[in-house]
Amino acid sequence: MMEAKHKAYLEELAAKVDAKLLEYVQVTPETRRQAQVVEAMRYSLEAGGKRIRPVLVLEFCRIFGGSEEQAMAAACAIEMVHTFSLIHDDLPEMDNDDYRRGKPSCHKAFGHAVALQAGDALLTEAFAVILRDPILEPEMKVELLQILTSATGAAGMVGGQIMDMANEKRSDVTLEEQEAMCAAKTGALIRGACRLGCAAGFAPKEQVALADQYGAKLGLAFQIVDDILDVTSTSEVLGKPVGSDAAEGKTTFVTLLGLEVAKTRAAALTAEAEQILSQFPQHEFLLDLTRELLCREK
Amino acid sequence: MMEAKHKAYLEELAAKVDAKLLEYVQVTPETRRQAQVVEAMRYSLEAGGKRIRPVLVLEFCRIFGGSEEQAMAAACAIEMVHTFSLIHDDLPEMDNDDYRRGKPSCHKAFGHAVALQAGDALLTEAFAVILRDPILEPEMKVELLQILTSATGAAGMVGGQIMDMANEKRSDVTLEEQEAMCAAKTGALIRGACRLGCAAGFAPKEQVALADQYGAKLGLAFQIVDDILDVTSTSEVLGKPVGSDAAEGKTTFVTLLGLEVAKTRAAALTAEAEQILSQFPQHEFLLDLTRELLCREK
Repeated sequence: MMEAKHKAYLEELAAKVDAKLLEYVQVTPETRRQAQVVEAMRYSLEAGGKRIRPVLVLEFCRIFGGSEEQAMAAACAIEMVHTFSLIHDDLPEMDNDDYRRGKPSCHKAFGHAVALQAGDALLTEAFAVILRDPILEPEMKVELLQILTSATGAAGMVGGQIMDMANEKRSDVTLEEQEAMCAAKTGALIRGACRLGCAAGFAPKEQVALADQYGAKLGLAFQIVDDILDVTSTSEVLGKPVGSDAAEGKTTFVTLLGLEVAKTRAAALTAEAEQILSQFPQHEFLLDLTRELLCREK
Repeated sequence: MMEAKHKAYLEELAAKVDAKLLEYVQVTPETRRQAQVVEAMRYSLEAGGKRIRPVLVLEFCRIFGGSEEQAMAAACAIEMVHTFSLIHDDLPEMDNDDYRRGKPSCHKAFGHAVALQAGDALLTEAFAVILRDPILEPEMKVELLQILTSATGAAGMVGGQIMDMANEKRSDVTLEEQEAMCAAKTGALIRGACRLGCAAGFAPKEQVALADQYGAKLGLAFQIVDDILDVTSTSEVLGKPVGSDAAEGKTTFVTLLGLEVAKTRAAALTAEAEQILSQFPQHEFLLDLTRELLCREK
């Protein structure tokens, strides 16, 4: 369990991000004819989730002395990219998931075409909110967007989703391949979040590299925990079907390592992540959050 | 028929864009594990098309005294956005087209999941090529990206595709609604191309507004001609099925106006576009191209 003050602080940050996301994505006079796609974007943004990525952006910015205002556009942008990826990942041609966070997935609620387009529009809007930000300098906008596109594109998250799909058809995926897939699919965006926060806070270069390493450890541990929960949790707790990996014969860190070794591995990665974190000033909240993410039950 | 020198110049510009697009989108050490998605991106980029949008970017930049190098990233970026939109538009949840420019559409050649992701990656890469450009200043990158995101997002092309899908289910679409849909679906990207070229060439504000008007006229005329060709051409000439609009009971400018009025309307819009063009210096090539687009048979 997180310390009460950290839990309250996490909720405060998440609430600020929630409010800003819905402020960014609204039906305007220009979009009144395509209000449905904007509603679908808002539906998926409102479906919640832990807001880990935006919190990492905001916290790394704060650690290096930056303000919330400097980091908020980037924080919301990375959550939009994450949400876009979930919408497209749930589509029938990908994972074909009817539920997401306990609610019908976007294509179940709005239809396949609207969900496809809502994802496309969210990805575009992620870049747009950084571009439109009133306080960021052009140099900063370019730096933030470069981090975001690298984390998102063929060498990042999108590429990872394709590796994941390709691996699903195979029964001989190696641990090295699984780690590479996970580094791209989950890791790229988490590392991107850490780097965005550092950039927004004008962190020194060597500190950015450290934050990036922390993100890589956290991302891998996060995915291993996800794989563990898919075999140990219940759909009521998770808010999504459990056992789906096994039912599909999917390679996971649990099938590759076994449940106990997977747990040990996640714990070791978190210890390494914690060790890196402890080198940053004002790291107490992120340290507590990192531990919470490993002990999470959903 | 275009003048021979203009035709040769168009082919020269298109060849330069083709080469640059394939230079931008390559399998790298970072993407070797997801080479399939990169191959799918290249497949759709190589499928050709008229490269109208990049040519508009390059030409408007040249008209205002800018170099090809200043405009090339933006030219390729808008073609990537256009290609991404075609890939997603051909998917079963949208238009469900098996052919595109005479070749199997991306999802027919690579499967639905890869096509979905190739589209996502192309949209991301469109932003990335502008961000990575070695000669553009940060202020210019931000300006170009703002034009690109506005043209692409919920208020632009993506929104237009949703309006188009919604209209398909209705039999009472009005001319005003059809024009609004077309202004977003087709017009936003063509206007965006004109604006990108002006921005890259540091055009004065009032000239940008004129170029934008030209783009709006051209975009609408272009779509009306598309609708006309769907009833008057053959699939051999077009390289895609004809009569599909009618078969689906789709509202088009031809069903709304009748064939003859639609033709007159397209001609009138082109005359207006030509009148605007004639106010720009060195407009001869674009004038010829504009006429060619109205007389095209595919």
